[in-house]
Parts: sequence; structure tokens; C-alpha cells
Amino acid sequence: MEQKTKSIPVAALEQFCQAALRACGLSEEHARVTTEALVTTDTFGVFTHGTKSLRGYVRRLRAGGLKAQAAPFVAREGPAWAIVDGQSAIGMVTSVFAMNTAVSKARTAGIAYVGVRNSCHFGAAGYYALLAAKVEMIGMAMANDTPSMAVPGSKQAVFGTNPFAYAVPAGEEDPIFMDIASSAVAGGKVRIFQELNQKVPDTWLVDAEGVPTSDPFVYPYKGALMPFAGHKGYGFAAMIETLSGMLTAGATMTQIRGWIDSDPSLPTQHCAAFLALNVGTITPLPEFKGRIDTMVRDIRSRPKAKGAERIYLPGEMEWEKRRQALAQGIALPQEVVASLQALADELGMKAAWL
Amino acid sequence: MEQKTKSIPVAALEQFCQAALRACGLSEEHARVTTEALVTTDTFGVFTHGTKSLRGYVRRLRAGGLKAQAAPFVAREGPAWAIVDGQSAIGMVTSVFAMNTAVSKARTAGIAYVGVRNSCHFGAAGYYALLAAKVEMIGMAMANDTPSMAVPGSKQAVFGTNPFAYAVPAGEEDPIFMDIASSAVAGGKVRIFQELNQKVPDTWLVDAEGVPTSDPFVYPYKGALMPFAGHKGYGFAAMIETLSGMLTAGATMTQIRGWIDSDPSLPTQHCAAFLALNVGTITPLPEFKGRIDTMVRDIRSRPKAKGAERIYLPGEMEWEKRRQALAQGIALPQEVVASLQALADELGMKAAWL
Repeated sequence: MEQKTKSIPVAALEQFCQAALRACGLSEEHARVTTEALVTTDTFGVFTHGTKSLRGYVRRLRAGGLKAQAAPFVAREGPAWAIVDGQSAIGMVTSVFAMNTAVSKARTAGIAYVGVRNSCHFGAAGYYALLAAKVEMIGMAMANDTPSMAVPGSKQAVFGTNPFAYAVPAGEEDPIFMDIASSAVAGGKVRIFQELNQKVPDTWLVDAEGVPTSDPFVYPYKGALMPFAGHKGYGFAAMIETLSGMLTAGATMTQIRGWIDSDPSLPTQHCAAFLALNVGTITPLPEFKGRIDTMVRDIRSRPKAKGAERIYLPGEMEWEKRRQALAQGIALPQEVVASLQALADELGMKAAWL
Repeated sequence: MEQKTKSIPVAALEQFCQAALRACGLSEEHARVTTEALVTTDTFGVFTHGTKSLRGYVRRLRAGGLKAQAAPFVAREGPAWAIVDGQSAIGMVTSVFAMNTAVSKARTAGIAYVGVRNSCHFGAAGYYALLAAKVEMIGMAMANDTPSMAVPGSKQAVFGTNPFAYAVPAGEEDPIFMDIASSAVAGGKVRIFQELNQKVPDTWLVDAEGVPTSDPFVYPYKGALMPFAGHKGYGFAAMIETLSGMLTAGATMTQIRGWIDSDPSLPTQHCAAFLALNVGTITPLPEFKGRIDTMVRDIRSRPKAKGAERIYLPGEMEWEKRRQALAQGIALPQEVVASLQALADELGMKAAWL
């Protein structure tokens, strides 16, 4: 699938996003935090969850479903846990606040859980897991979403594509990290097949009768995504729903509004959950980091399967893309450029670099 | 796949297992704890991880790789975490001790992590997750294992089939629970296809070149299992390895000996990890349980896909099998009966009910 791309310097993209968010009334700090989450995600090559989404967030900020001036706060807490109420602040601000809270509690408790309610779409789960890894903790991040995924035996969508991410700090190597949806693929991937007018594998979608189909156009209104590995993706989605929506006394399943398609003047009520484990509290940190490095190098150097050139660690492809983006600019796909251009037009902003 | 089965009263099976373990020198308490884990697993219909394994554990107990008189102990701890050293006690004893430790710490801390080193194969991960759900906590259990699973691009096995399980307490409904391998299927399922001389789906195994194959006989020595959903199962396996083997400063990957095939006089050094979240500390318990019940009933009553008769909750099939087993006896597959009979012969025990 060849796609047109445009190489954009990271700093220019950051400056644009920050200005757009400031224009919507976000504080300098909140604009910075949001920008960093979205642009970092683009540098990893995860364009479905980066700055492409900014236009949708801005639309909701301007319509009132997201509150530009709101700030998340800790509604309940103990030494190793907290419940954060996002008050409909933009999802990145609430999620960074929540993971920072988890990290701070894990520093003394060794482990912490922070649940979030009244948030919004938080972009890429992996970004928050990596915030923990950056300070030598193991991080996990997950969230619920408006239903778009069927479960085995169901005709229609039951759960969202409830993402899960984790990150593990290494020593000299990059942190290991994984960021996945509970569905076989994220909805954004189906949209790419729609744009290219190509059939999808028949493990991605069910049609209006709940039967597997290779027609990408049943998504999102006439069919639903399928969970990965059948009952396994289903089971993870239910776990994530519980840790995000249930344990926070927040919204779940059909109570969550779609952040793209629903009335932008209403809050989406997404929930999320963050876990941090402070490696150094539990085990000697240098030994741990050394062993992760050893594992990474061991896996990388294993004999390759016929036809395979490399074995990638979880997250390794993303780290390579990020290094390249930081050095040479981000190769933004055409649909991201189009989304940013439309946003610039809507806000009356100039973006000569686009 | 039709298989001969034999219906055995639960109490008779329990009595036999307990006597067998007592004959190997286990204390009454350790024999009881181990028996309960194995027989409960059989009642769920998970025969690959129940009493069928007892013969292998006994072999190792008698050869010295498992220590009949050993007891696990807390090697390091904080208010919300602990590291348990199993001292090569039988895996069920160490795992129950570890989950009980997590539960006890979560009662005050809200959440707890307990890592385990120097254990052995622990049977079904779901059993330990359910111990937490039984006392109204969310439980998670996972473990590493000797390598038998390739990762994307690798020619040979890199990780074990590293299992993951969670359980969520409900109100009037049964706890939701999932117990899965990081591989597409557990090795036991491949062995069933070998016994039936049938081909397997080409997403289960790779051959000696690391290429997907439908030949079940490449397992376990000439090929390897594949992770579920490609990079997703791989990513989970790496996370489980980290939380089990790395955070405990225990054994990982090739340092783990296979509990079936390796020299039974040596310790297998399996590691594991257990998490407990005390629902009632974090959110009002009755509301939580009510909402889980509502979700369960909602999902169950959704419109069915064409051709589907029911939508099962994660764990629901297992609860149904358990109720039937408790009422009518466990319908043990022929290979389980054969394994128990061989064990009885080896120990010079009578088992008239077999």
C-alpha cells in the first residue's frame, strides 16, 4: 500500500499543534503536554493516533464536549492507588496526569493503580506506558471506548477496541513496549483499506449479521470489528473495561460516546487505567536493566526463520522510526497532512510547512 | 474430535490425588492445596492442566527436582508487593501462597504485586486469579515456562507459552475469568491432534525452518508454537517474562527447565507473578458488583450472530462445566484416566473407581 507522504520537521509540527491548542483556550502547559503526546506518537509511525486526531479534538474543544480550561483532579486515593476525574479535559492532559500520579505513588508503594473517569480519547496508550519506563518503572496503560467490536457470537458491537499498552525500561537498549487494540486491527487500519478500495482479511470484520466478511465498507455503521484471536481479544476487552470503567465508577460500553462521530458539544466520558511498578523498589535496578538488555540482544540475534531478515523486539520498529523522524523529520502520510491543513483552515492559521 | 470419557465423582478424584501426594511426603495441607487446584481445573473442563499433570509432578517429587517438604517464603516485601521464593516446592503450593500474600497486602494497600521465583509448572493460571475473585478482588496470574514458542521472525522457540489469567468478581453472577496462553494454542491441544493424527491450522506451529506448518508432529522437538495474533502474543509473552522472571531476579527463558521432559532430579525454576486489586478499597463494592452483573446480563442478551446460539461471557463455559461436574462427576477424558491409572500403578495404589 503505497501512500504519499510529506517530511515535516518535528519542531514545526509541535509548534503548529501547540498554537492550535492555545487558540482553543488551553493553557501553555496543557497545550505542551497534549502536543508532546501526539507528536511523539507520529514519530513512532503510529499516524492513526497522532496529530491526525487533533482536528477532532479541536472540534470538540470548540463545541464544548471537551473543556479547554478543565483540569483533572484526584477524586479518591490511597497510598498505592487513585481515581482521577478528568472533568472532560482533553484526554492527553488527564492521562499524563494520571500516569504521573501512578508513578509518584509507585515510587514509595512499589506499585500503583490509577483509574480515570470522565476523560476522552487518549490517543496512543503506549505513550503513557513509556512515561513510566522513562523513570525506570514498568508501565501499563489501557482505556475503554465506544462500542465498535463484536464478541464471539454477537451480531453487533459490544466493546470498544479497548487498547492495552505496556513498557519495560532497559539499560543501554530502548524500552520494550507494545501498544495494541483488543480488536484484530484498529478501526483506522480499516479506513486505510476503504481509501484504497481493497478487501480486508476475513478475520477483521463481521457484517450486519455478525458473519465474518472481507468488505471494509461495513465499518463502522453496518458491521463491527472482530477481537484479536477470538475469545482472547474479547477477554482482554472485558478486563480493560473493568479496570477502566467499572473500578472508577465511570462510564462503560454504550455510555461512552464516539470521539469522532458523536455530538461534539457532549462529553465522551472515556475511562482509562494506568499501572506503574517501580523496578528499583522490588529488585536491584542495575541487574534488572542488565538482564533486559541481555534478553533484547539474545532475541535479536536468534536464528531467523526462512525468509525473515530480522527479529524485532516489541517496540523496536517504532524506536527506529522515531530516531529517523527526529533526525530527518516525520514522513507524514497524506491523510495526516490533509487533516492538519483542514484544521489550519478552520482555525485561520497559516501552516506554510504543510 | 470424539474422545472416550469416564465420569468420576469429584470426591473420589480428590481423595486419590491427596493420597498420592501424601505418599510422596507432602504435608496434609500441601496435599490438600495441590489437589484443590488440580481437581478444580478438571471441573472447569481444562483437562490439559488438571490431574493429568499429577503423574509428572509426582515423578519430579520422587526424583528430587520438586521438594516434597519445602515451603515457599517471602524473600523481600513492601506494603504493596512481595517476592516469594518457592524453594522448589510443588507449583500449586507456592502459587496459592503467593496469591494469598497478594490478597492480604491488597486488603490494606488496594493493589499488590507478588512475584515468584524457584517454583515449578503451576497448572492453570485461572485458578489463582479466581482465588482473588473469591474474596471480591480482581486477580491476575501469569508465569513463564521453558521455551516452546517462536516469535515473529525467529526460527526456533524463544519464549514459553507464558500463560495469563484474570478474574473479576460479580454479584449474583459467576466471576468473569479468562485463562490463556501467549501461544495460539497450548501445547496440550497440539498433542490431542497428534493422538488423532489430524492436521492443525497453519497459525499454530512453525516447522524447523520457522515456517508455518499444519503438521502437528513438528511439536515439540522439530518446530515451535506460534504466538496468538502474531506480535500481540509475542508482546504479552515478553511482558509476562518480565513480571515473572525479571522482576523476581528469577530464571527466564532457556534457564527454565521443561517440567515434563527435563531431568526430574533438577529444579525447573519456573517464575510467576500475581496481582490483586481490592475492589472495595477503590470503589463502593455493591455498586461495582451490580454493574458487573448488569454487564454480564447485557452481553448475554445481545442479538446473536447468524448461526450463533449463545454469547458466552469469558469463563462462562467453564462455570457450566464445573456445575455439571460437581453434580454428576467429572467426565475425565481417556488420556487423563490413563495418566491417573499409570500413576496409581507406579505408587502401588488402588483406584477401583478408575
